[in-house]
Amino acid sequence: MDVAEIIEAKPGRRRERAGGRDGRRAGHGTELPHRAAPYIIRNIPTYDILGEDNLLKIEAAADRILAEVGIEFRDDPVALQHWKRAGADVDGLLVRFPPGMLREILKSAPSSFTQHARNPANNVEIGGKSVVFAPAYGSPFVTDLDKGRRYGTIEDFRNFIKLAQSSPWLHHSGGTICEPVDVPVNKRHLDMVYSHLKYSDRCFMGSVTAESRAEESIEMARIVFGRDFVDRNCVILGNVNVNSPLVWDGTMTNVLRAYARANQAAVIVPFILGGAMGPVTNAGAIAQSLAETMAGCALTQLERKGAPVIFGNFLSSMSLRTGSPTFGTPEPAIGSMVIGQLARRLNLPLRCAGNFSNSKLPDAQAMNEGTMSMLSAVHCGANFILHSAGFLDGLLSMSYEKFVMDMDFCGALHSYLAGVVVDDNSLAIDAFLEVGVGKHFLGCAHTMENYQTAFWDSAVADNEPFEKWEIAGQTDAATRANLRWKQMLADYQPPPMDEATDEALVEFVDRTKAKLADAWY
Amino acid sequence: MDVAEIIEAKPGRRRERAGGRDGRRAGHGTELPHRAAPYIIRNIPTYDILGEDNLLKIEAAADRILAEVGIEFRDDPVALQHWKRAGADVDGLLVRFPPGMLREILKSAPSSFTQHARNPANNVEIGGKSVVFAPAYGSPFVTDLDKGRRYGTIEDFRNFIKLAQSSPWLHHSGGTICEPVDVPVNKRHLDMVYSHLKYSDRCFMGSVTAESRAEESIEMARIVFGRDFVDRNCVILGNVNVNSPLVWDGTMTNVLRAYARANQAAVIVPFILGGAMGPVTNAGAIAQSLAETMAGCALTQLERKGAPVIFGNFLSSMSLRTGSPTFGTPEPAIGSMVIGQLARRLNLPLRCAGNFSNSKLPDAQAMNEGTMSMLSAVHCGANFILHSAGFLDGLLSMSYEKFVMDMDFCGALHSYLAGVVVDDNSLAIDAFLEVGVGKHFLGCAHTMENYQTAFWDSAVADNEPFEKWEIAGQTDAATRANLRWKQMLADYQPPPMDEATDEALVEFVDRTKAKLADAWY
Repeated sequence: MDVAEIIEAKPGRRRERAGGRDGRRAGHGTELPHRAAPYIIRNIPTYDILGEDNLLKIEAAADRILAEVGIEFRDDPVALQHWKRAGADVDGLLVRFPPGMLREILKSAPSSFTQHARNPANNVEIGGKSVVFAPAYGSPFVTDLDKGRRYGTIEDFRNFIKLAQSSPWLHHSGGTICEPVDVPVNKRHLDMVYSHLKYSDRCFMGSVTAESRAEESIEMARIVFGRDFVDRNCVILGNVNVNSPLVWDGTMTNVLRAYARANQAAVIVPFILGGAMGPVTNAGAIAQSLAETMAGCALTQLERKGAPVIFGNFLSSMSLRTGSPTFGTPEPAIGSMVIGQLARRLNLPLRCAGNFSNSKLPDAQAMNEGTMSMLSAVHCGANFILHSAGFLDGLLSMSYEKFVMDMDFCGALHSYLAGVVVDDNSLAIDAFLEVGVGKHFLGCAHTMENYQTAFWDSAVADNEPFEKWEIAGQTDAATRANLRWKQMLADYQPPPMDEATDEALVEFVDRTKAKLADAWY
Repeated sequence: MDVAEIIEAKPGRRRERAGGRDGRRAGHGTELPHRAAPYIIRNIPTYDILGEDNLLKIEAAADRILAEVGIEFRDDPVALQHWKRAGADVDGLLVRFPPGMLREILKSAPSSFTQHARNPANNVEIGGKSVVFAPAYGSPFVTDLDKGRRYGTIEDFRNFIKLAQSSPWLHHSGGTICEPVDVPVNKRHLDMVYSHLKYSDRCFMGSVTAESRAEESIEMARIVFGRDFVDRNCVILGNVNVNSPLVWDGTMTNVLRAYARANQAAVIVPFILGGAMGPVTNAGAIAQSLAETMAGCALTQLERKGAPVIFGNFLSSMSLRTGSPTFGTPEPAIGSMVIGQLARRLNLPLRCAGNFSNSKLPDAQAMNEGTMSMLSAVHCGANFILHSAGFLDGLLSMSYEKFVMDMDFCGALHSYLAGVVVDDNSLAIDAFLEVGVGKHFLGCAHTMENYQTAFWDSAVADNEPFEKWEIAGQTDAATRANLRWKQMLADYQPPPMDEATDEALVEFVDRTKAKLADAWY
């Protein structure tokens, strides 16, 4: 089924969400929503940059790292027991893996699975040819052109959910879009999960900062979807990080096991800043990433065989003049293509990070770095692209304006991933015969039949002639995005939620909070 | 030979140009120039998005267009004679081509050739795995943050040559970087060609606005390179446009024949704005582009068998709300991949357009659109990428700031195109054995040995922590680029030129100008 077919299969669903045709216009600007879909089925191939021989070398290096250096598993005796039972060499906290062991374990993980949304029209498939865009994740700060950078609040958090929900070009509500710093650390997850469920009807992610918080996130999903349904279907993702190089902390492994135990998908993500948490050379960082990710993914299978799991990665580089981390640079972009090849050889769904930048503003640097890294995620075959929108300041700030620009770019990528369709209609021989030489195609029958779905039409870009742009105020893209997010928030309409469900969620949140003293660290 | 080898083969050449290590620092900022090279040898594969069956369908459609609709050749009886002699069906100005005829003629065109620069260290190879970056071409206006948009002058023209010459990341001086509107139309080419030869020692392009101007451009090259050398080697390119759909104007065919006659390379470029000069569907526009380009390329071979020629393309889309042309959009970007496949099947060097945008400012829109289209040119296998730097405002304005940003991005692409090297050093097993688990790689032997060449280091991007950026003035990328082009111009050092050659060029320019009354159209 290609993108066009998906749209045809779901007539009016975007329309319904945004309150009819006029509602959509007000909410989404004037995009032609012809390619909007619950997720994308890619119609272009993955971009495979290495041949079999080099892939085998990288896999062999990962096997040597796993067998000769090993990975430390801290503060999680159950994980160590799992590894012992599976045949690994466990020496204190250090686990060494016989070559081939992890690959064998990983055979039970599904190559593709459905994540269910509370609105079934928004279910997403993760794996195979699917591409799912989700917002950026984890910034302590938010920023906009009016107020500049400040700590994020639960209101900001809800705003970003509302903006994402209002866009036809994101497919997923994400997780910790920004940290709601005004809510105690040990209670944040309750407000965050509630907000995803309340203000969005798309798929979302739960807490990973403690096993109890992961379990409470899943429990809230059970209130909405039902206990049996959750045991049989994926409805929530948990994004867990390796403490690179080659350390898995107990918090993370306890959390990933909690998700796996509940048959929910953990996303396993090393964060390797080359030269710091890994070697400065790309091939070595990739081999390390493969080793760390395979170990995390395999642990989910030891906890519950067949649980869904996502192979993740987050390669990064650093400025060798200043030692600062850099984002959206060429080496991680091209390195991601190799990660994609390796994930496919493991037959696992792939998560890549999307729209990276180190810029502090929604400026030219932001979109140069962001576009290169987002295209790399799309080319490498990623199925779940976290950080698709909003990322600035090296992941420290969620930008309202960048969020709007990036969502628009996600829209463009719907057209990009549709590829080049070759059939009688698109080859347009009749149009050439009709128009002949030296005349224009504007009014010909073929143009009239095809123009509405022909080209991506950005809602943020200015495509007017210079003189019109000048009279209209000489705005830059950031200024237009600023106006746009305010309008989108003003126009936001919440997706309907069953009253009893809402009450049950609120009751769970209140009851759980009441058991906890506020903690701010 | 890969990029690293090229650099090793030419130690110090960039250093020489910019006046020693300190000179380079002053002129080029603080880039690590480790990947600078006269041109790039790509170490990543082309991104082939269509399979054989679909490529055959597009080629068949092009053959039908050529055979059933035909191409009109206006105001050039010699071209019509060529076609008649070659076996085409010539009916008045309309030429119809039997299937396969053009492909047969094109077999005599070289798949790769060297363009010689007056400094032989700057020779570029055009074809095969080579990638050559050249500035944008043809804008009547220039713009910068200080003075805004105004008509270009010969001083602007020289400034852009100087900026290009000062950058290690462009490989070619280009052609009509901007129109020098203060010089009469019929004399401009003399000042432009002189400026390329005088202020740059890289390869360049000549005039295409009249046959006489093309011939005078070539004559100036002969003064520098010698008559015999020019007859045997390519030293100048001429970029000629099809008057799409399916019309070749006499000015253009006379010019392309003049270049071919002199054994110089014409670049054959349809400009197809889908929905206007071609169908709104990508496959049809690509088939048309193939048909038009094959005809132009073949005509060079009829004029002089074996003359170098470059297969070009310029796909574009339009806003279907406003009818405005759009640039840097997804459909042309993905369509270029197919054009690349088709050019390789013809065994011809490929030109693509690079860094497109319709934005009026060097803002987020400019770099989002520019980055997508530039990456598409790089992925599709283009050998000669015109418009690599400076393009804004739908090709109406050359931007000083965008020029600087784009040159910096060209630098990043040197790292990107180097791909992922897989060998014992890059796999870094020794580093893992040395560092072990949970420690950082900053001081390890492998990092010390590799860090200087590990990562691209942008001279325009801000990678400082937020607080440092804040104290330093909270600049955006455009502001930093503004400072940078002024510094680069201040630091510019002209490449040495033999005095007798300079005098001969000046004499030719003066003599030729004296023969002409000023013409302003």
